[in-house]
Amino acid sequence: MLYVAWADQVLSPSEAKLLQIKLKDLPFLSAGDRELLKSWINPSNPPDRELFQHWRILIHNRSAESTAEDRKSLVDLGLEMARAAALREDGAWWTNPETRQALETLENELDTIQIKTYQSLFPKPLGEEPSGKINRAALTAILDDDYADIRNRMRVVLTDPVFEYQNFRSKEAYRDQVLRWCRYLADQGLGILSYPEADGGENDMGQYAAVFEMLGYFDLSLSIKFGVQFGLFGGSIQWLGTEKHHRKYLEDVGKLNIPGCFAMTETGHGSNVRGLETTATYDQESGNLIVHTPHHEAGKEYIGNALHGRMATVFAQLIVGGENQGVHAVLVPLRDENHHLLPGIKVEDNGYKMGLNGVDNGRIWFDQVSVPRENLLNRFGDIDSDGNYTSPIKNPSKRFFTMLGTLVGGRVCVPRAGLSATKSGLTIAIRYAHRRRQFGQDFTSPETLLLDYPSHQLRLMPLLAKTYALDFGLTFLTKKYLARNAESIREIETLAAGMKSYATWFTTHSLQQCREACGGKGYLWENRFADLKNDTEIFTTFEGDNTVLMQLVAKGLLTAFQNEFHEEGTMGVLRYLGRRVSTSLAERNPLTIRNTDPEHLRDSAFQIAAFRYREDRLLYSVSQRLRAKIKAGTKSYDAYLECQPHLLKLAEAHVERVIIEAFTQEVKRTADPAIKAVLKLLCDLYALHTIELHKGWYLEANYIESNKSKAIRREVMLLCSQIKEYSLDLVEAFAIPEKVLGAEILT
Amino acid sequence: MLYVAWADQVLSPSEAKLLQIKLKDLPFLSAGDRELLKSWINPSNPPDRELFQHWRILIHNRSAESTAEDRKSLVDLGLEMARAAALREDGAWWTNPETRQALETLENELDTIQIKTYQSLFPKPLGEEPSGKINRAALTAILDDDYADIRNRMRVVLTDPVFEYQNFRSKEAYRDQVLRWCRYLADQGLGILSYPEADGGENDMGQYAAVFEMLGYFDLSLSIKFGVQFGLFGGSIQWLGTEKHHRKYLEDVGKLNIPGCFAMTETGHGSNVRGLETTATYDQESGNLIVHTPHHEAGKEYIGNALHGRMATVFAQLIVGGENQGVHAVLVPLRDENHHLLPGIKVEDNGYKMGLNGVDNGRIWFDQVSVPRENLLNRFGDIDSDGNYTSPIKNPSKRFFTMLGTLVGGRVCVPRAGLSATKSGLTIAIRYAHRRRQFGQDFTSPETLLLDYPSHQLRLMPLLAKTYALDFGLTFLTKKYLARNAESIREIETLAAGMKSYATWFTTHSLQQCREACGGKGYLWENRFADLKNDTEIFTTFEGDNTVLMQLVAKGLLTAFQNEFHEEGTMGVLRYLGRRVSTSLAERNPLTIRNTDPEHLRDSAFQIAAFRYREDRLLYSVSQRLRAKIKAGTKSYDAYLECQPHLLKLAEAHVERVIIEAFTQEVKRTADPAIKAVLKLLCDLYALHTIELHKGWYLEANYIESNKSKAIRREVMLLCSQIKEYSLDLVEAFAIPEKVLGAEILT
Repeated sequence: MLYVAWADQVLSPSEAKLLQIKLKDLPFLSAGDRELLKSWINPSNPPDRELFQHWRILIHNRSAESTAEDRKSLVDLGLEMARAAALREDGAWWTNPETRQALETLENELDTIQIKTYQSLFPKPLGEEPSGKINRAALTAILDDDYADIRNRMRVVLTDPVFEYQNFRSKEAYRDQVLRWCRYLADQGLGILSYPEADGGENDMGQYAAVFEMLGYFDLSLSIKFGVQFGLFGGSIQWLGTEKHHRKYLEDVGKLNIPGCFAMTETGHGSNVRGLETTATYDQESGNLIVHTPHHEAGKEYIGNALHGRMATVFAQLIVGGENQGVHAVLVPLRDENHHLLPGIKVEDNGYKMGLNGVDNGRIWFDQVSVPRENLLNRFGDIDSDGNYTSPIKNPSKRFFTMLGTLVGGRVCVPRAGLSATKSGLTIAIRYAHRRRQFGQDFTSPETLLLDYPSHQLRLMPLLAKTYALDFGLTFLTKKYLARNAESIREIETLAAGMKSYATWFTTHSLQQCREACGGKGYLWENRFADLKNDTEIFTTFEGDNTVLMQLVAKGLLTAFQNEFHEEGTMGVLRYLGRRVSTSLAERNPLTIRNTDPEHLRDSAFQIAAFRYREDRLLYSVSQRLRAKIKAGTKSYDAYLECQPHLLKLAEAHVERVIIEAFTQEVKRTADPAIKAVLKLLCDLYALHTIELHKGWYLEANYIESNKSKAIRREVMLLCSQIKEYSLDLVEAFAIPEKVLGAEILT
Repeated sequence: MLYVAWADQVLSPSEAKLLQIKLKDLPFLSAGDRELLKSWINPSNPPDRELFQHWRILIHNRSAESTAEDRKSLVDLGLEMARAAALREDGAWWTNPETRQALETLENELDTIQIKTYQSLFPKPLGEEPSGKINRAALTAILDDDYADIRNRMRVVLTDPVFEYQNFRSKEAYRDQVLRWCRYLADQGLGILSYPEADGGENDMGQYAAVFEMLGYFDLSLSIKFGVQFGLFGGSIQWLGTEKHHRKYLEDVGKLNIPGCFAMTETGHGSNVRGLETTATYDQESGNLIVHTPHHEAGKEYIGNALHGRMATVFAQLIVGGENQGVHAVLVPLRDENHHLLPGIKVEDNGYKMGLNGVDNGRIWFDQVSVPRENLLNRFGDIDSDGNYTSPIKNPSKRFFTMLGTLVGGRVCVPRAGLSATKSGLTIAIRYAHRRRQFGQDFTSPETLLLDYPSHQLRLMPLLAKTYALDFGLTFLTKKYLARNAESIREIETLAAGMKSYATWFTTHSLQQCREACGGKGYLWENRFADLKNDTEIFTTFEGDNTVLMQLVAKGLLTAFQNEFHEEGTMGVLRYLGRRVSTSLAERNPLTIRNTDPEHLRDSAFQIAAFRYREDRLLYSVSQRLRAKIKAGTKSYDAYLECQPHLLKLAEAHVERVIIEAFTQEVKRTADPAIKAVLKLLCDLYALHTIELHKGWYLEANYIESNKSKAIRREVMLLCSQIKEYSLDLVEAFAIPEKVLGAEILT
């Protein structure tokens, strides 16, 4: 009771008086006890930190050992402490009813007890309370969008006992398990969803993407293995092959009867696919294609399924009649029924990796391996029986890019699985921050919750906002992809490249922050971050190196930009910019650039205008720079090279603009007013935090002035503290099954 | 020869004519051959991408298989290709001396061959040439500073065959190996260096720090195990114990006869050390201390050596005569001679972690464990035979902070080992970027070196500059630490906290960049990044969570700032700032804030003034904000809480200012003019890149204007390209033995 009375560091006159009087009424106290207690209720002599800490330990000791039902009152706690402390002494005064009564009277009369202190003595059983401020299920439905059914099905599937985390130390055991898991999924019909109905599928890439994303909540090795088999290997047959290949292979691929590889990357050539050196040479005499690795560095590398695969889609320069027709894909059997390598095939394990050790990546070399002509995936190029090469696309460049374009689905899916990992990490870090306390106002108050620290809010809340932003942005991309056609495919490729890079860099960044936010606990394997981080770390490289992809994005934008005025020339460019930038320019009047009004800052119109302005201005300025360089005699290649950092910024600005627009649309579309309000907060935070990150650029461009920049910073902090209140709801709405989340720290 | 002739995409008239004439002279050509070749030497019909790629593959195929001696000329290469291609055909025309002669004539006459293309056909054996522009050994000597001898000794020790990388999958096997390695080091007398001479040591923390740092090039688990045993456990005895403890234990600790733990952190209290709940209660009757864990969450956690340890320094609330004297350290035996746990001790393995799996971290609980009174490490608090507590420092707060202050050595050392990991990563990434080529100007030129991409330069060169900056900054800190005294210790604690945080965050960031810069290869275990990243990842948390430490830094600065004018009040503050900021203010005249002259930007005076201005202004503004809040009635605690992000920026600005000053001094001190020039480039890049990172702040403060900000960006790019030329020298100067570097990618 003294602990509680002193917890506000003040013993008020009435408290002191009360205690002094009651001291005499407590029948069980010895003279020595009375003396000691008297020294403790001298208002001018508060207990020091060490004494208080001592009391706390004693109380904590008892209350931790008592069960929930025991935790009734200070009196109960005190009597229990007395019983425990006196075990070795005589007497049983603490069982005396008089003692209890005297103490209870005292407790009742001590009415200035701080409720916070009281609660900290009787902690609720672990587990955070829902805030109840928004309807979590309704928010989950918004996130699940058109694919709620398959997502809910996956939530059930992944809760099955066969999907159990296990710390595999040997890659072989891990890979075997992942293969078994993959078979379970195939048995559930989940591998075949994207294939044509004629092959037993549902012709639905949307469902495939949702399954892939949901696997990202569980084991990323399984996601990738699943993606390699059904997405890359199966997808190559689906998109580069023709009906004969579909009928012959897809059902078996979708059921995992034929495990296969997507053998594109070589040691010497990864990003530069046109530079591949493996050859597939047509031999007119035998009617076979001879697949060959011309030298060691031309071997295929990092190939998933290399050890389990029975077949591979091999990308090679197709040489017909001594003429190279460029990169084509050929199906090459790797192993026989007994899983022995076929003649001419050499496979080497890539060994242990930073993560994804459940995926069997390896190197493959071909030594004059013959396959029948029919194994050429011939949608975009074929060899007739006379040994003539034919193609529906005459221009080799166009043919190459059209072929690659059909494979863009991987880039649409990869960032989704990465974002699932981020969601797991955020859920763990934010729930932990709602329980963990450290340091405090003074030694007498309960310690402060991690999430009540502004630096902790500033660390986690913008990540939460960006996760929501990316979720809606990726849904936007997926829908565009599902509705793709010949006209839109280039734009989708550009956007997919950009979103993939932006989102996977964010995954790496956000998981690092979440791990640090969980301190030492975050470092233990049992709390998931080790695998979450290491498994997704390569996402910034595979399916296209992010830096390379971002350059593609910028080039795509410049091409679109230039095409639009091919004939009109500079005047056209200026007219176009005049049109696009006019709104932005209006924003740049002296009043606007100084406007620090929170309503203005939280106005979507301002936010979108700011993002568009950045994209447009970067597009215009880099295009001018390139033009000037080329005009001055710099080779086009060198001009682009010199502008590389500028191009990367343009790409980023483009992706961010698409995301803020998609997010703003989503907020508008939302009906539930409580959810709408929270989504608006998140959208504001994403917008303002992003502007703040680029504030150097905006200040340099005189788009905002100092005072506005400072106001944005304040608004970001305010938004963080507002979103904090909903943060449990917001992570629970991801609806990751507790078992799949699987972090010890939360149990 | 056609490949080379066409490599510039132009077949000049004389080349074409020459080839057309010579065609007739080549005796071995069939009519069909002549026809085909004719089509290939039509200047208006250059070979297309596919044909060229085909040639390249054929050539590459042969040249890769031939030995270095074979690579003599195009003729040799061509003849070899002919021999290889014709294996299955008849004839041996390619051995005909006439053929060779005709071809040699042709090669000699084709004098427009591009030298670059030629070189790419005959690649030098792998391994980069030294630039030879600076004296690497002299630069190494500068980095090694006063501790070159011990560093060179470590370079030899770590090259010994017992120090071999092995991919331990089981933590037990790994820990055993690390323990064995630790013994080898102890046997070399490397564990005892910092202890008093009376105990067999050399009383030299500088040597200890150098050893610890050098171990960071090899296996980080070994560094940390070494640090736990000799630095933390031994250090606690050395700094918190008295002579009796030194004589009794230190030699055995230094020889690893007593493996021990540093049991400070608890599950419930990590950062908040004063909140520890383990108790050490003095029992007057027995004269023993009873060490006890009051409840589960008060168990010691993450304790290194928990499984191998025979003894632990346990930090506990010391309770004497019913009174808590605050946190003290007590030596507690954990295991007997047979390595069985002693009664009352419970130890649990922390299990697998993200990294450092060679270190046996665990949890320890004490159940009423008795140890003799003498086991109290009694330098700062003792119990006499009458059971009275005595201490040379009466104030418990002051006592606590003085005790902790003696342990600051860990924070001085940890960032050094982290920086070693960064140096390894940078060496690998930069050397790889000097060999790896991808994409190119056009399909006929050799592909572009990664390091010739501006984005790659911009990714790696600032990291290299900052690594040098931190090296000199940490040397500055180490020297201050070695010369510490009662007056300077607080300032050193502040600086150590700041440098530890700043440097370890940099390690995490830089290794991520280096991994990505190596693409898929960086993800393979064999290339070191998996361990480098994962082992150092916890550096941002242990030895003090970085965010917590940065707040300490800011508070230290504010305290120093306020102390200085305790009596003078606000006027004093203003006078002080007037004094400190006056130079900075001079810098802010309209001419200066617009000055884009490269000489100005590379002037140390400008750089240092900019860094100082940022620190001073942040210190002043946060102090004003705090003052205003407190004046308005906000509790001091809440005021600090609200200013947390501001305080963190101040801390960063302080560290950066110290570093730029140390680096600038180092440049001044350097005698060798070539090295001095390169160090100046690095110092400029660190300075300008850092200002660019903060450009939003500087623009907001109107310290620079837009045009200056843009000029700084241009200067950063230019510096990157200039430093690129020396980058091999700069990483080689770290002098990491090749075997210790151990990256497959470089072999």
